[in-house]
Amino acid sequence: MAVTRRSLLSASGALASAALVPSAARASASANGARMRRIAVEEAWSIPEHFKALAAVSEGDWNNLDVENVRLLGHGTGPIPINLLDTERRLAEMDSLGIDMQLLSLTSPGVQIFEIETAVALAALANDRLADVVTANPSRFGGLASFAPQDPRRAAKEMERAIHKLKLNGFIVNSHTGNEYLDEAKFWPILEAAEALGRPIYLHPRCPSDGMAAPFRDYRMRAAIWGFQAETGTHAMRLILSGVFDRFPKLQIVLGHMGENIPFHLWRSDNWYKKRASAYPSKLPPSEVMKRNFHITTSGVEHGPALRYTIEVLGAERILWAIDYPYEEMAPAVTFMNSVDIPEAQRSAIYHRNTERLFHVASATGHGGLL
Amino acid sequence: MAVTRRSLLSASGALASAALVPSAARASASANGARMRRIAVEEAWSIPEHFKALAAVSEGDWNNLDVENVRLLGHGTGPIPINLLDTERRLAEMDSLGIDMQLLSLTSPGVQIFEIETAVALAALANDRLADVVTANPSRFGGLASFAPQDPRRAAKEMERAIHKLKLNGFIVNSHTGNEYLDEAKFWPILEAAEALGRPIYLHPRCPSDGMAAPFRDYRMRAAIWGFQAETGTHAMRLILSGVFDRFPKLQIVLGHMGENIPFHLWRSDNWYKKRASAYPSKLPPSEVMKRNFHITTSGVEHGPALRYTIEVLGAERILWAIDYPYEEMAPAVTFMNSVDIPEAQRSAIYHRNTERLFHVASATGHGGLL
Repeated sequence: MAVTRRSLLSASGALASAALVPSAARASASANGARMRRIAVEEAWSIPEHFKALAAVSEGDWNNLDVENVRLLGHGTGPIPINLLDTERRLAEMDSLGIDMQLLSLTSPGVQIFEIETAVALAALANDRLADVVTANPSRFGGLASFAPQDPRRAAKEMERAIHKLKLNGFIVNSHTGNEYLDEAKFWPILEAAEALGRPIYLHPRCPSDGMAAPFRDYRMRAAIWGFQAETGTHAMRLILSGVFDRFPKLQIVLGHMGENIPFHLWRSDNWYKKRASAYPSKLPPSEVMKRNFHITTSGVEHGPALRYTIEVLGAERILWAIDYPYEEMAPAVTFMNSVDIPEAQRSAIYHRNTERLFHVASATGHGGLL
Repeated sequence: MAVTRRSLLSASGALASAALVPSAARASASANGARMRRIAVEEAWSIPEHFKALAAVSEGDWNNLDVENVRLLGHGTGPIPINLLDTERRLAEMDSLGIDMQLLSLTSPGVQIFEIETAVALAALANDRLADVVTANPSRFGGLASFAPQDPRRAAKEMERAIHKLKLNGFIVNSHTGNEYLDEAKFWPILEAAEALGRPIYLHPRCPSDGMAAPFRDYRMRAAIWGFQAETGTHAMRLILSGVFDRFPKLQIVLGHMGENIPFHLWRSDNWYKKRASAYPSKLPPSEVMKRNFHITTSGVEHGPALRYTIEVLGAERILWAIDYPYEEMAPAVTFMNSVDIPEAQRSAIYHRNTERLFHVASATGHGGLL
């Protein structure tokens, strides 16, 4: 089915992009970008039980910024967003845009604002449901498993189950848990499990933790406009400086949104690391950790200069394509990746090759895919 | 004197840079960069009275991150850093590197951690002393005036005195004051004064405010390695979203350190602004505010890809050269600006032309300068 729809739609898709892009990019978009396998890796999804739990938490007067966000978005009180729940609808849009695969994950803040037993049970339930979605359409969906960092030992067991039994592709965590960060020793079983299983943790944004929330309470600063990167970039920099990657040297972390501002700050962070290396636990400067232990994705940043800058600093092999659906639309993400002016080898690495390698996604031929 | 030293040293300076730079840049460095006027705009300086006041504050158990930083650096207990005080020594190094001018400013956190009367008096004293330094060497030094945001009305009067009587060039403020940001209405007299006087405010870093300090207390995260941009970028984004530039449309703010990460996030901030413009007080999207009301400087970021990215996003007319002396060294900042691979018209704009225009620095011919 996908092959047929793709064949029918690829010509018009190439034409649609061509109108928006410079001539240098147009040739490559029609010649190559339109035929490349497209795998998006930060794609939100949910289940009704998750929204019920969010609604319950939002009923109190807890002023955590994520809870305030849940209240504002009406999650629980309003209708459940259909585009988080309905995979048929999602598939139809993927077909219309030639998107081969999405790696789905439970929408932020996942299970991390719940009481421990609720969180543990809900993570397992979400992973079971996600495995059902993937099993029903293994050539179109993969999944990033949730876990409850509130209980690191049980989280590690769930991570093992998610890979070995459920055959999911990796993990997702929404930044801090109870205002604590993954560099703290109590969370090391989680990092250890990810490294041992050889699967990355997607460090997804949530709003700034209570201990840094104050300046983000005005002007809706808390979310994508600025707060998400402040929280998630700070979390990542804590991981980098803490030295956890000396302990878990093969651990892979994925950052969305073109790296949550870290790539742009990397020269300065390195500069100060080198001035006083003994002050920081990490044995490696930040740029070496980034190039060894991190990948970044294009989610929500369809900006050629930022992508080219990031390729120059981190290398195209460290970059993955993502949409951030349904918070961002699918079509502009495809148009961007088809048309952005970069070499074709880099385009294919970002569109699918890096993701196949990092998240153990079978190559297209093995799946009856589109190439 | 400067002309003579410059003539003697310019040849060796060009050779020194040439060894470090690609051949494409080398020609321009020896042909043009070496002869361009060089004005650095974020150059720290202090007076003994300032350090005495810092020492007094650091004696308590106040856990504000800047106070902890003052304690750690031994300001007050240790010797006062000679390179903040001694302008003769500074001039000699400027001569040896062909740096024509520095705009000096009281080192961070300025007067902003003091009781109100101390802060007001110390700002005036520092401005008087700074005016003396400038008057003694008007072709080599300019000055950015301090003020005490703790008392916005008196701050506005001091700003007027600093420009009209002391003939200083602009203003500096070290991010938050008592955990409050300049978008709050109580501070509007300061913004109004800067706009009316036609002089920019340099929004210099300090450590994260108490309300966002918690994640920055570990791994020395608070300062240049990550915390400075988190604090200062967040302050700038508050200003942008709050709509203060609708009220003060000619106000100019300067951000150091290649824009405190805002340029790299600008596409995403715009994207979310446009999705829900009515949620943000500002009538303009962030990128339009940045291109109308902000300049950024190269201080502490000697990274060609970051400079070229920023030129692409903001335009070279919005970028100024800065060193961040003595926290950064002068020589690498000169080598970088001489050799970075950008068009010569952009190099001269960044090296001196934009600064002459923005900070009302007399052109070199009027000053008996080096060109």
